[in-house]
Amino acid sequence: MDDESAIYAAQGFGNALGIGAAPGLVIVDFVNGFADPAHFGGGNIPDAIAATVPLLELARSNSWPVAMTRMVFADDGSDGNIFSAKVPSLRGLTETSHIGQIVPELAAEAGELIVRKRHPSAFFGTDLTQWLTARRVDTLIVAGCTTSGCIRASVIDAMCHGFRPVVVSNCVGDRALGPHEANLFDMGQKCADLMEFAAVADHFKG
Amino acid sequence: MDDESAIYAAQGFGNALGIGAAPGLVIVDFVNGFADPAHFGGGNIPDAIAATVPLLELARSNSWPVAMTRMVFADDGSDGNIFSAKVPSLRGLTETSHIGQIVPELAAEAGELIVRKRHPSAFFGTDLTQWLTARRVDTLIVAGCTTSGCIRASVIDAMCHGFRPVVVSNCVGDRALGPHEANLFDMGQKCADLMEFAAVADHFKG
Amino acid sequence: MDDESAIYAAQGFGNALGIGAAPGLVIVDFVNGFADPAHFGGGNIPDAIAATVPLLELARSNSWPVAMTRMVFADDGSDGNIFSAKVPSLRGLTETSHIGQIVPELAAEAGELIVRKRHPSAFFGTDLTQWLTARRVDTLIVAGCTTSGCIRASVIDAMCHGFRPVVVSNCVGDRALGPHEANLFDMGQKCADLMEFAAVADHFKG
Amino acid sequence: MDDESAIYAAQGFGNALGIGAAPGLVIVDFVNGFADPAHFGGGNIPDAIAATVPLLELARSNSWPVAMTRMVFADDGSDGNIFSAKVPSLRGLTETSHIGQIVPELAAEAGELIVRKRHPSAFFGTDLTQWLTARRVDTLIVAGCTTSGCIRASVIDAMCHGFRPVVVSNCVGDRALGPHEANLFDMGQKCADLMEFAAVADHFKG
Repeated sequence: MDDESAIYAAQGFGNALGIGAAPGLVIVDFVNGFADPAHFGGGNIPDAIAATVPLLELARSNSWPVAMTRMVFADDGSDGNIFSAKVPSLRGLTETSHIGQIVPELAAEAGELIVRKRHPSAFFGTDLTQWLTARRVDTLIVAGCTTSGCIRASVIDAMCHGFRPVVVSNCVGDRALGPHEANLFDMGQKCADLMEFAAVADHFKG
Repeated sequence: MDDESAIYAAQGFGNALGIGAAPGLVIVDFVNGFADPAHFGGGNIPDAIAATVPLLELARSNSWPVAMTRMVFADDGSDGNIFSAKVPSLRGLTETSHIGQIVPELAAEAGELIVRKRHPSAFFGTDLTQWLTARRVDTLIVAGCTTSGCIRASVIDAMCHGFRPVVVSNCVGDRALGPHEANLFDMGQKCADLMEFAAVADHFKG
Repeated sequence: MDDESAIYAAQGFGNALGIGAAPGLVIVDFVNGFADPAHFGGGNIPDAIAATVPLLELARSNSWPVAMTRMVFADDGSDGNIFSAKVPSLRGLTETSHIGQIVPELAAEAGELIVRKRHPSAFFGTDLTQWLTARRVDTLIVAGCTTSGCIRASVIDAMCHGFRPVVVSNCVGDRALGPHEANLFDMGQKCADLMEFAAVADHFKG
Repeated sequence: MDDESAIYAAQGFGNALGIGAAPGLVIVDFVNGFADPAHFGGGNIPDAIAATVPLLELARSNSWPVAMTRMVFADDGSDGNIFSAKVPSLRGLTETSHIGQIVPELAAEAGELIVRKRHPSAFFGTDLTQWLTARRVDTLIVAGCTTSGCIRASVIDAMCHGFRPVVVSNCVGDRALGPHEANLFDMGQKCADLMEFAAVADHFKG
């Protein structure tokens, strides 16, 4: 995307936001169904889950606010929406279904916020914004899946809600690599900083 | 993207939403600065503007609610946000700047809503949602630019707010064609129907 | 409040909105804990619950979309917010607590939306808006408690989101009658029509 | 309201929130039309405007973020909503109308945010939330009018968005004193701390 990057640079896109004083971590939709290619998974999602384990440790050791999202639809279909009309298979992600549970290696600890959502964005129709605001978070470190779906939507919303988003590029994954790369490009140009986990860890060392 | 389409189809994405009983039209950011490659324009944006002229006529002749968006930042910089930190050149889009005015061929008529926004999405921090809801719109026909930026953000939000989005694929444009195509793919899989203007016009004939 | 009504009338407040073509019903926080003066109840809340039974029947017999709200906080306190800091006793309203369950006489049927909220308004941090929008509701019939708390907040938000609110005045209740009356006055002047259940039932007869 | 206060106290309402580390100030709708009993004014609004002058000085001398709201409807009526259907006289508050301008003694300085709104709440359909979030405000000091209208709506929303609201009780006013008092009571019980200006000034001394 060299030509495209040149166009964006000439028009003033892609400025670095930097990491602020008060980070928070959100892990988006790392649930069993997205770890499994037979449901919504595949591609580099398993690698991204593995890479998020030390990121979650970093967050906990630094006492950042930590939130984790799940897609959760009602058993009786009462909360069906346009998203579940567009992707009907999502309706299987219910409160108790196996595919809807957070993967065991990233299970939440007491005090970490579980966000149940029915939209791509972690913020839409949820309490995440005000939870982060009340904790005075200024920078949102983002991991999860999929890069082209719920990550993209959550990162745009994070920016709009007043948080500087940092997409940890090896901690986000997608079922197909073309959309993964295309969406990293868009986010890096327009709404987020992109950093590898190692660079994030370095930043908080010492 | 044939391989990717196969993965998405197998997992249940890309279901058609269809056009409902009550369409509305939103035209996103077709302002002078996005028609001009020296500012934020280029690529296929001029073609998309030209193709939107008959779409706007269709909307008016059918008495659909019509909304048009502009990016408008305050002259004194008081409303700067994370988006304008990421893309500082956007701050030149002010109430009276030439680059911030809607292109003449798509100028609003009395009664059409002008939405001033400071975020990618036409819905974020604006009254657009409730304006459409109060008019009982169920389907949002979308034109404008850029496909990978404000169109993508607006279309996701349209879906989340309960409207069926239809992206008129030759009435949206972008400064660079790679992101244009990648974002059409994402939207078609996850949040919108994609239709050429001719197909939209056919639908409303007779 | 005769003098006050005269001031409001002179300044143009209190215009009737009327009932539109597509009503929906929301029942706010009629849960065991608000039916019980030992928790959050008292006043005319029991009467309002009793009066809401035939209102719910009217809604079901006319196939209106029906939503019911509950306050639900997490067992581990992870989702504490400013509201629960102001009123700490609310934290006892959890997913499985007796006081947090909808009263038996108004239990939801399959397909009716249960809205879990952590704020006064039925709309804040929930999916209610888009659920009503997707169903093209234009008028929101409101019952529940408390008039001065979650009803007031929900009714203002209903108006802002583009729905015409009708407060069914004998189907809303409060623990104390002064705030009940004061808030009926405010809502009638600024954001809702006030109607007794009998008048609502009459409207939909024939 | 002694009896009522006892009921609320027994049920756990009215806990003090306290002032946090990072205050911001919002002044709601102190425009010419609300200073004038011939339009939307009267009661104790003039006193509240006068009392807000030193509050604004305090904010500026402490470099708090300052936001001021105006109701602004479009000249062509295109943005009419349910609120302006309920109170049609509000439509006269336009961008350039005399009654829509902020009163001269509280005119904004460069860098202070002017929030144009078409709803009671300063937050609804505006950028105020993310503007405060991006500046890491944790406590919102509130002045303006009317206590029973736009103050009440703004204060509930401030709480929901994650800010601790402080209503400066002599810097808010209403056209009629009954609703003024009733709404101060509700806000003090459920969503805000109430403080006189002198107490706020004392808090920030030294």
